[in-house]
Amino acid sequence: MRAIVIGAGMFGASTALQLARRGVQVTIFDFAHQGKATMAGAGIVCPWATQVEEPEWYEMYAAGARFYDTLIGDLTAAGEVDLGYRKVGALVTSQDAGDMQAAGERIARRTANAPEAGDVRLLSAREAQEKFPILRDNLEAWLIPGGARVDARLLSAAMIRQAIAHGAVFHNDYVTLVAKGDGYVVRDGTGTLHEADEIIVAGGAWASQILSPIGVAHPVKPQKGQIVHLRLAGVQTKEWPVLLPMTSHYMLAFDDSRVVVGATRENDMGFDYRVTATGQASVLEAGMAIAPGLANAEIIETRIGFRPAGPSIKPIFGRVPGAQGLSVANGLGAGGISIGPFAGKLMADVVTGATTEVPVAPYAPTL
Amino acid sequence: MRAIVIGAGMFGASTALQLARRGVQVTIFDFAHQGKATMAGAGIVCPWATQVEEPEWYEMYAAGARFYDTLIGDLTAAGEVDLGYRKVGALVTSQDAGDMQAAGERIARRTANAPEAGDVRLLSAREAQEKFPILRDNLEAWLIPGGARVDARLLSAAMIRQAIAHGAVFHNDYVTLVAKGDGYVVRDGTGTLHEADEIIVAGGAWASQILSPIGVAHPVKPQKGQIVHLRLAGVQTKEWPVLLPMTSHYMLAFDDSRVVVGATRENDMGFDYRVTATGQASVLEAGMAIAPGLANAEIIETRIGFRPAGPSIKPIFGRVPGAQGLSVANGLGAGGISIGPFAGKLMADVVTGATTEVPVAPYAPTL
Amino acid sequence: MRAIVIGAGMFGASTALQLARRGVQVTIFDFAHQGKATMAGAGIVCPWATQVEEPEWYEMYAAGARFYDTLIGDLTAAGEVDLGYRKVGALVTSQDAGDMQAAGERIARRTANAPEAGDVRLLSAREAQEKFPILRDNLEAWLIPGGARVDARLLSAAMIRQAIAHGAVFHNDYVTLVAKGDGYVVRDGTGTLHEADEIIVAGGAWASQILSPIGVAHPVKPQKGQIVHLRLAGVQTKEWPVLLPMTSHYMLAFDDSRVVVGATRENDMGFDYRVTATGQASVLEAGMAIAPGLANAEIIETRIGFRPAGPSIKPIFGRVPGAQGLSVANGLGAGGISIGPFAGKLMADVVTGATTEVPVAPYAPTL
Amino acid sequence: MRAIVIGAGMFGASTALQLARRGVQVTIFDFAHQGKATMAGAGIVCPWATQVEEPEWYEMYAAGARFYDTLIGDLTAAGEVDLGYRKVGALVTSQDAGDMQAAGERIARRTANAPEAGDVRLLSAREAQEKFPILRDNLEAWLIPGGARVDARLLSAAMIRQAIAHGAVFHNDYVTLVAKGDGYVVRDGTGTLHEADEIIVAGGAWASQILSPIGVAHPVKPQKGQIVHLRLAGVQTKEWPVLLPMTSHYMLAFDDSRVVVGATRENDMGFDYRVTATGQASVLEAGMAIAPGLANAEIIETRIGFRPAGPSIKPIFGRVPGAQGLSVANGLGAGGISIGPFAGKLMADVVTGATTEVPVAPYAPTL
Repeated sequence: MRAIVIGAGMFGASTALQLARRGVQVTIFDFAHQGKATMAGAGIVCPWATQVEEPEWYEMYAAGARFYDTLIGDLTAAGEVDLGYRKVGALVTSQDAGDMQAAGERIARRTANAPEAGDVRLLSAREAQEKFPILRDNLEAWLIPGGARVDARLLSAAMIRQAIAHGAVFHNDYVTLVAKGDGYVVRDGTGTLHEADEIIVAGGAWASQILSPIGVAHPVKPQKGQIVHLRLAGVQTKEWPVLLPMTSHYMLAFDDSRVVVGATRENDMGFDYRVTATGQASVLEAGMAIAPGLANAEIIETRIGFRPAGPSIKPIFGRVPGAQGLSVANGLGAGGISIGPFAGKLMADVVTGATTEVPVAPYAPTL
Repeated sequence: MRAIVIGAGMFGASTALQLARRGVQVTIFDFAHQGKATMAGAGIVCPWATQVEEPEWYEMYAAGARFYDTLIGDLTAAGEVDLGYRKVGALVTSQDAGDMQAAGERIARRTANAPEAGDVRLLSAREAQEKFPILRDNLEAWLIPGGARVDARLLSAAMIRQAIAHGAVFHNDYVTLVAKGDGYVVRDGTGTLHEADEIIVAGGAWASQILSPIGVAHPVKPQKGQIVHLRLAGVQTKEWPVLLPMTSHYMLAFDDSRVVVGATRENDMGFDYRVTATGQASVLEAGMAIAPGLANAEIIETRIGFRPAGPSIKPIFGRVPGAQGLSVANGLGAGGISIGPFAGKLMADVVTGATTEVPVAPYAPTL
Repeated sequence: MRAIVIGAGMFGASTALQLARRGVQVTIFDFAHQGKATMAGAGIVCPWATQVEEPEWYEMYAAGARFYDTLIGDLTAAGEVDLGYRKVGALVTSQDAGDMQAAGERIARRTANAPEAGDVRLLSAREAQEKFPILRDNLEAWLIPGGARVDARLLSAAMIRQAIAHGAVFHNDYVTLVAKGDGYVVRDGTGTLHEADEIIVAGGAWASQILSPIGVAHPVKPQKGQIVHLRLAGVQTKEWPVLLPMTSHYMLAFDDSRVVVGATRENDMGFDYRVTATGQASVLEAGMAIAPGLANAEIIETRIGFRPAGPSIKPIFGRVPGAQGLSVANGLGAGGISIGPFAGKLMADVVTGATTEVPVAPYAPTL
Repeated sequence: MRAIVIGAGMFGASTALQLARRGVQVTIFDFAHQGKATMAGAGIVCPWATQVEEPEWYEMYAAGARFYDTLIGDLTAAGEVDLGYRKVGALVTSQDAGDMQAAGERIARRTANAPEAGDVRLLSAREAQEKFPILRDNLEAWLIPGGARVDARLLSAAMIRQAIAHGAVFHNDYVTLVAKGDGYVVRDGTGTLHEADEIIVAGGAWASQILSPIGVAHPVKPQKGQIVHLRLAGVQTKEWPVLLPMTSHYMLAFDDSRVVVGATRENDMGFDYRVTATGQASVLEAGMAIAPGLANAEIIETRIGFRPAGPSIKPIFGRVPGAQGLSVANGLGAGGISIGPFAGKLMADVVTGATTEVPVAPYAPTL
């Protein structure tokens, strides 16, 4: 069987890897658009604290986190060691006592059947600061030991490397779809047409630009995010937990004394890839408000990412009805890093006709 | 009248400016793809030395150069002073006596009716070195006083600014075409559809990716170029002529002690935007061979550009047959900076039904 | 006569140029330290609005501005056209009526004998916004037509190029002083010792690091500034006046749709070259407060500069007492771009024994 | 005891860490000069193949490699996991049969008493290509399993973090020495003077600039190196051995599909931090000659480093004769990454009066 995967973000890279492992002849096309969500995403894997209650989405979100142990184990066994992955735990906090209590109940309910979340407990403000030293004073926090962070750039690159190790072919190229007979073919940058038994459009925020011209409605739009990376030189940050203040912002740290603060959520901006004055300032202000110790940190870079956001929070993946040999794998929004690897496995199940671990009908694309 | 221009390179920016000046309501969409030819192009305006003899192409090439005086005059009058434009002259040289003689004859024939080229004369090796101090020894050169160089980044930005000053609207966005009725509409990054009386696809190397999905054949492909910018700190380079050694390589200089050496011509690479070891090394070797004084210059950056190359060297522009309200403006290949501004004027003539200064039928897109 | 100038910022570059023009054999050493004030400075030339009243400093500040017409004229005549210089005028504004009145009186007094300032007048809020379109509403402003802006990177590079054109030799190198006999020699990066009749230390914030080890007290310290460059794509900003809101912040624009907002004034930080969260955020907040239209501007870069700040605001230049053949040219603080070129001329007068246009005794270094 | 370490390269960082671990109050000053050798160095740890026979230098070189197991073990135990260190082995190769035989004998002699080098064996051209897939054809190679590579940026940052964890204080600042009484004090960027029982100048190529002004002769000069980093996207390079073709060039790879080719050795350039046309081209040509598969690799960056090179190849470290409380730790040249960590330990022994594992007299600074 031959499959073409368009897009090498978390969803596409995982789909390509899972297909290649099953012996499918996979060709991957990726243009590395500036603003790829995977290249800009923070890298938080911690579903249990979300305030969103949509059940079918949450099932994917939780399953995605559960899948990480398998994924990281497989990749490590294959020699992929440089993933930026660490189960550092997550701190869920708020200055509002009511919010804290609600969060505690929500997390307890969610983690009841999720042993991978670990033993959740309430930290005193002092304990919280010990775990996250630049945290502001007097903030209790719920600790979820199973929370993790990962460097999505490294992880997606590793999945692609492993797909290639299993025979996949990768091209840096910008492709589009052209109708042929009952189905479609992929046109690459040289004008060459590529056929496959299945074409999987994992183009993220750009997928609609690929699908609309051929008359396939696809409701995913870009949601712009601006995310700031800072350095606390000389500070050992690698064990710092993910910080979730129950606002639209968050904070996490990596091994190299690097702290990440995110993110704006800008709708209806189209593909405006600019770092803006208000975007940068608002993220910095939010970060310093929850972590005053950030004030003297060095700004390394600000990344722009376009989250692929559908009309509902649910992912959209599966065969396109009425389109021969065409699938989409998209719509993970802000949850792409958590959900992408698992969703890619499901996508590979769909394409190869295997049984899926969870029902995928709720996520199927419609006309 | 409403027009949408897709792409803000030399051709698109000029088309937008010319239309806006005539009172057309212009909307411009540009994603600033990495690899836009206009952002990478060297900026040579000197048609008379080319070894290519295709007459219809050459007519455009020569007319494009002739048009520059008007363009620069208009922009300067409008207050656009920062264009990197200077009529520094061009040196055409070769180590081969036969090539030099052939070049002299070719240039004489071409400039006979082109007063803007100035009085062409043969420079001794010493005179040539005085004009281009890092030139290797013992190289005579033909001097074409009318040769010029321009910074296409600044020039295209100035044309867009002036289009906006005339009422045009500019969006950083990534759009595509969707069929509607007998014609097409533009779908922007937010999914919003934009209608216009005329949609002009000036997408350069990316145009085929926009047109193929809607069933419009467009034979333009990207031709990759790698071009190196170097600094000769402390050296006053602003009067240095353009250097044309009659190979695929060339050299020119800007006001800020900057020297540009170009370029590779890589076909069938698709949109591979990488600076490669062999590309970088080959351009540097070619530059040092003709200009040994470059050896100790500082490398500032290497730019990648995808030239929009059609099946013949001729531009392709005009209304798309059988497509209501759809035009293309493309195919300028390596001549985009010379031809773009003039071709944009012709394109505006076509769209507004004005008489064109030269016949445009030879450049019309076919099915 | 042979002179060595250490440091190629505004002061050093001007000194080198003025000396070279007089036939002095000049050697310039500059390491291009990250954080050179000249490379980060905003580029405002408008002394008349300052709230500082120190008379001897103000005399230099005003004379520096007056000197610009001569400098720009000379450089342009020499073919240096790319200086980013434009007499765009300055807007002095405040929300406080009392401050506005005081400013008006101050400016009137200062410009009484300064025809180069032009005819100062009060603009209505609407007039002010017409000149500076992103200015907030309801702000009257004093317009000083003679205010100018300049790109100090281009101007210093041009002065160095012209010094070289007059026989100066330039080295990218990191040097220090070593005692020899009654005087000193310069030790370059290769260990080679360079002698001169006069060694002029124009090392800016780094001068003390050069002088202290040889026992020469020099009280200048680095004052860190963080300054943000933004782009308003498509907006013609080249005529925008310099904006002086009578706070520590300011705003100006350049030809390429670029707006500059500055700056932090951070003392006792030493040479901390990092862009910090609080520095970046504070400058952006200040900019958006006075110019709300900046909110959607693109952040291009944030520059760090270390202003050479002495114990008083006065410059420090002249022969070092008791040190044979050693001079310093330093201490211009935040006024370097305005004062540097003129001070360099005075410095050249001192070194060559010419009469100075103004008394320089008040600025002489002491032990 | 209080110690000040000037310079946080491999030598300084290791000295600071070793001192801090022993309870010394350490203050570290580092300006992060562009061109710090540690930030540019390739990261090869493989002493046994060198063609240099100077015995005292080789003893340090070999001991430095031997020390790595201890160092990496200690850092990993302390939680420093991100060091880019891997014992990938080294391939020593040449097209000249005589050179290969001589290399084999040399390596055999060197590794006889160096079990950490592993079992050296001759690989066939095919075996060599299996280990280093882009190697040119028909090249046999000696495999030294104990050869390793390390990312000196990560390693030095980790040593500094651990020094801080043991109480050291780190400043980004640019300091100098000033005489005081029989000894010296450190003057920081704010003009503040810092005293210590021992001041250790580990300023690498810049050390002479610190020492000369106070009359301390120090013969170390910068030797410029240009080193190119390339990416082979999708290729799993992390197990690739270090490649030593017995020329002045070499190649190694890191986990992230990155290949490093080095390096120029440019003497008497002073601190010329520019990437030059000839430097870049020569490194690329050398790399493609030994590894043709590099031709299509992406150039990521070119780094400049100034190796601290003394008059002989031997390191120079220890107390400065006749200078109270002043030591130097320098002169590691191209061997800094191999020797630095061990030399820092010896330096700490010297400063604390501990017995050194090897005699250090041969490396003591002289007047």
